Amino acid sequence: GLKAFCEELHPAALAELLAELEDETVWRVLSHCALPRQVEIFEFLSLHRQVELVEAIGKERLSKLVGEMSSDDRADLLSRLDPVRVESLLPLMAQADRADVRRLLAYPEESAGSIMTTEYASLTEQATVAEALTALRKQAPDAETLYYIYVLGPDRRLDGFVSLRDLVLARPERTVGELMRRDVISARVDDDQEKVAAQVMRYDLLALPVVDEANRLVGIVTHDDAMDVVRQEAEEDVLRMGGVEPLADSYAETGVLELAWKRGKWLMFLSLVALATAQVLQRFEEVSEAHVWLVLFLPLVLAAGGNAGSQSAALIIRAIALGEQGTGPWRLAARELLVGGTLGFLLALIGYLSGYLWFELGSNESLMVAGTVFVVVVIGTVCGSLLPLASKKMGADPALMSTPLITAVMDVTGVILYYGVGIWLLTTLAGTAAR
Amino acid sequence: GLKAFCEELHPAALAELLAELEDETVWRVLSHCALPRQVEIFEFLSLHRQVELVEAIGKERLSKLVGEMSSDDRADLLSRLDPVRVESLLPLMAQADRADVRRLLAYPEESAGSIMTTEYASLTEQATVAEALTALRKQAPDAETLYYIYVLGPDRRLDGFVSLRDLVLARPERTVGELMRRDVISARVDDDQEKVAAQVMRYDLLALPVVDEANRLVGIVTHDDAMDVVRQEAEEDVLRMGGVEPLADSYAETGVLELAWKRGKWLMFLSLVALATAQVLQRFEEVSEAHVWLVLFLPLVLAAGGNAGSQSAALIIRAIALGEQGTGPWRLAARELLVGGTLGFLLALIGYLSGYLWFELGSNESLMVAGTVFVVVVIGTVCGSLLPLASKKMGADPALMSTPLITAVMDVTGVILYYGVGIWLLTTLAGTAAR
Ligand SMILES: [Mg+2]
Ligand SMILES: [Mg+2]
Ligand SMILES: [Mg+2]
Ligand SMILES: [Mg+2]
Ligand SMILES: [Mg+2]
Ligand SMILES: [Mg+2]
Ligand SMILES: [Mg+2]
Ligand SMILES: [Mg+2]
Ligand SMILES: [Mg+2]
Ligand SMILES: [Mg+2]
Ligand SMILES: [Mg+2]
Ligand SMILES: [Mg+2]
Ligand SMILES: [Mg+2]
Repeated sequence: GLKAFCEELHPAALAELLAELEDETVWRVLSHCALPRQVEIFEFLSLHRQVELVEAIGKERLSKLVGEMSSDDRADLLSRLDPVRVESLLPLMAQADRADVRRLLAYPEESAGSIMTTEYASLTEQATVAEALTALRKQAPDAETLYYIYVLGPDRRLDGFVSLRDLVLARPERTVGELMRRDVISARVDDDQEKVAAQVMRYDLLALPVVDEANRLVGIVTHDDAMDVVRQEAEEDVLRMGGVEPLADSYAETGVLELAWKRGKWLMFLSLVALATAQVLQRFEEVSEAHVWLVLFLPLVLAAGGNAGSQSAALIIRAIALGEQGTGPWRLAARELLVGGTLGFLLALIGYLSGYLWFELGSNESLMVAGTVFVVVVIGTVCGSLLPLASKKMGADPALMSTPLITAVMDVTGVILYYGVGIWLLTTLAGTAAR
Repeated sequence: GLKAFCEELHPAALAELLAELEDETVWRVLSHCALPRQVEIFEFLSLHRQVELVEAIGKERLSKLVGEMSSDDRADLLSRLDPVRVESLLPLMAQADRADVRRLLAYPEESAGSIMTTEYASLTEQATVAEALTALRKQAPDAETLYYIYVLGPDRRLDGFVSLRDLVLARPERTVGELMRRDVISARVDDDQEKVAAQVMRYDLLALPVVDEANRLVGIVTHDDAMDVVRQEAEEDVLRMGGVEPLADSYAETGVLELAWKRGKWLMFLSLVALATAQVLQRFEEVSEAHVWLVLFLPLVLAAGGNAGSQSAALIIRAIALGEQGTGPWRLAARELLVGGTLGFLLALIGYLSGYLWFELGSNESLMVAGTVFVVVVIGTVCGSLLPLASKKMGADPALMSTPLITAVMDVTGVILYYGVGIWLLTTLAGTAAR
């Protein structure tokens, strides 16, 4: 019955089934499996669900559970729990685990240290292949992966690595030193997780060793956790670009109030920008009274600038995220200027033709609309590409230059150009022509 | 010199260095390494660069190169070349390679078949561990990974898998049948790549076997290629949401004209929507003349609807991409309605206060602005969440319901509500009050 069910399915599939059940039921089902299996399943639950479940059990049971968890997942869970509870839990854990937890919890969020596991397999250069395989059998129960094995010198200095593939294919009397690759790619423990994931992706690694400032191995980041970072960072970019503060849990797990707040603060800020636009429009009260037709093309002018800007921002933000900064900011801006010019011309043409033929404006008025659209698209394109770069330069997330923000900036700019510069040129030129 | 340089660095690092050089120089550097190493480096170049390089060499050299490439990367490259050139190349390739290329090129883009490699390691259930290790040594040169080994029955039927870890840890006289796991997670060859990558991510796999309709193993998707899919799909979502048609190559590798076109077609379409908005505004000519102050809050009304809609769309599009459809569309819309109501109230308050206190409108006028903002935010939120779901339902990409599109839809809606409904209510109520 339940026991077989517990043993047969993939732990991730079981976790998905359990996620929907009541806390008590989950624990009842889990108690039919052996502890290592329980933990395997538990680790596949979302962090949000793990925290909920853990709140329903006592200290004794919790300490057994975390004692068996892999070191990275354990640190993630404990970092979400009430620090008082964590402190009361630590004495119940084995000495080594306690030290491990303390060390991992000390690394800043989103650093390599915060996503690495300390359970790696290691060997010394002097070992023969036969000795190495025996050593690996001993390390197996505690190692997150046996496929990449790190070769350590004195004081855990990272000297190289061998793959299990190489060991299995080699003759037993060869030594690890002969087989190992010395050009080992590694991350620093304080590197940003995004950089770490990009390295795993770039080099197609199963795991990336993480070292401290003295090149001592302190942990490894495995491919599955790197993949989760790639997904999480992409997620963050999408949400920020949509004007939503990134969520800590999944959308379904986030409460209505938290959602409202993470959206509301952006919306309120953007409303203030829109009110600044209103203020600018108020300055042009005489213009809007004298030229009521202007309002017709206001949405077009505002949309053109905002949309062109959003496009540039989307392209640049992702290019930055993928580490594609090959092209310097100035070359990039020049390129965007060229694209913006082309697009501006295209949209200006649409503006002119529709103004003149569809809305039956005069040719001067149509030209003024077209000119404004052109300028607004070019400015939008350049802003959309430079703002994320500037944000990055100042150490902030490029994705903070969200679509709504660029749209809001372009709204103000558009109004000034349209009601201010455009009308001024129109009346000046008309005045000149009339004279 | 060059030879040592070629052998020592990681092929991905070398590829990055070579990417910037002239075609001829690249080939000159590569010719210092042995062919397998040349190919290893070549495979780490972007597909765009691979195609450029391949155009500079003759059929003979190209056939040697592709003969050595891994089957998935080879198919990707050939799918980008001129079909005439591919046909002329095939006779120069080994019989087995030729059949492999033909089969892989036949799978539709973005299917499991198009990202899998056919170079997997396999065993039979009857083999002992010792026999298995011997067999793996033979398969090693051609296998993409030795870490997951698939257990095949008659006619390549997928019966289970063992990991190299399990084999290495087991006593040599045990059989594969005793060690293997039978609950093997697999994909169908016509599954979408996004689903395949999600499975690899969900189950933390190193490789996912791909089977045909008769459960015969046809290939495997490895973790690195799954990670590339996650990145590529996230990329697509970001660009589509920014109103850019996804690029085939990286941003830097895409020409100005292609960029302009992939942005221009969206911008032109959005301009047409803006012109529809202009048309609607023209209908309200009398209203805009009688109430010129309306224009002040037009940017606020339009921005509020568009921004709230973008936020919802960003949240829903990512929730769909991550397979988080746990909550049905109606529950989801209800939830968004709740959030939208809260946000609408917040922004309406800002609208009322700023209208009344800052811009010194009458209290009826301020109330009308606030009411419009409320309704527009609620409608925006619901549209932003339902449009991606509808798009998915119709088999299209949810991310097609891009931010600019939702913004454009909300522009029309906003104008109708503001100049139409709002003013109608205002004058009707004022009329009633005056009577
Ligand atoms: Mg795990
Ligand atoms: Mg962590
Ligand atoms: Mg980050
Ligand atoms: Mg890669
Ligand atoms: Mg892990
Ligand atoms: Mg980021
Ligand atoms: Mg490869
Ligand atoms: Mg392919
Ligand atoms: Mg797709
Ligand atoms: Mg995973
Ligand atoms: Mg591959
Ligand atoms: Mg997609
Ligand atoms: Mg707008």
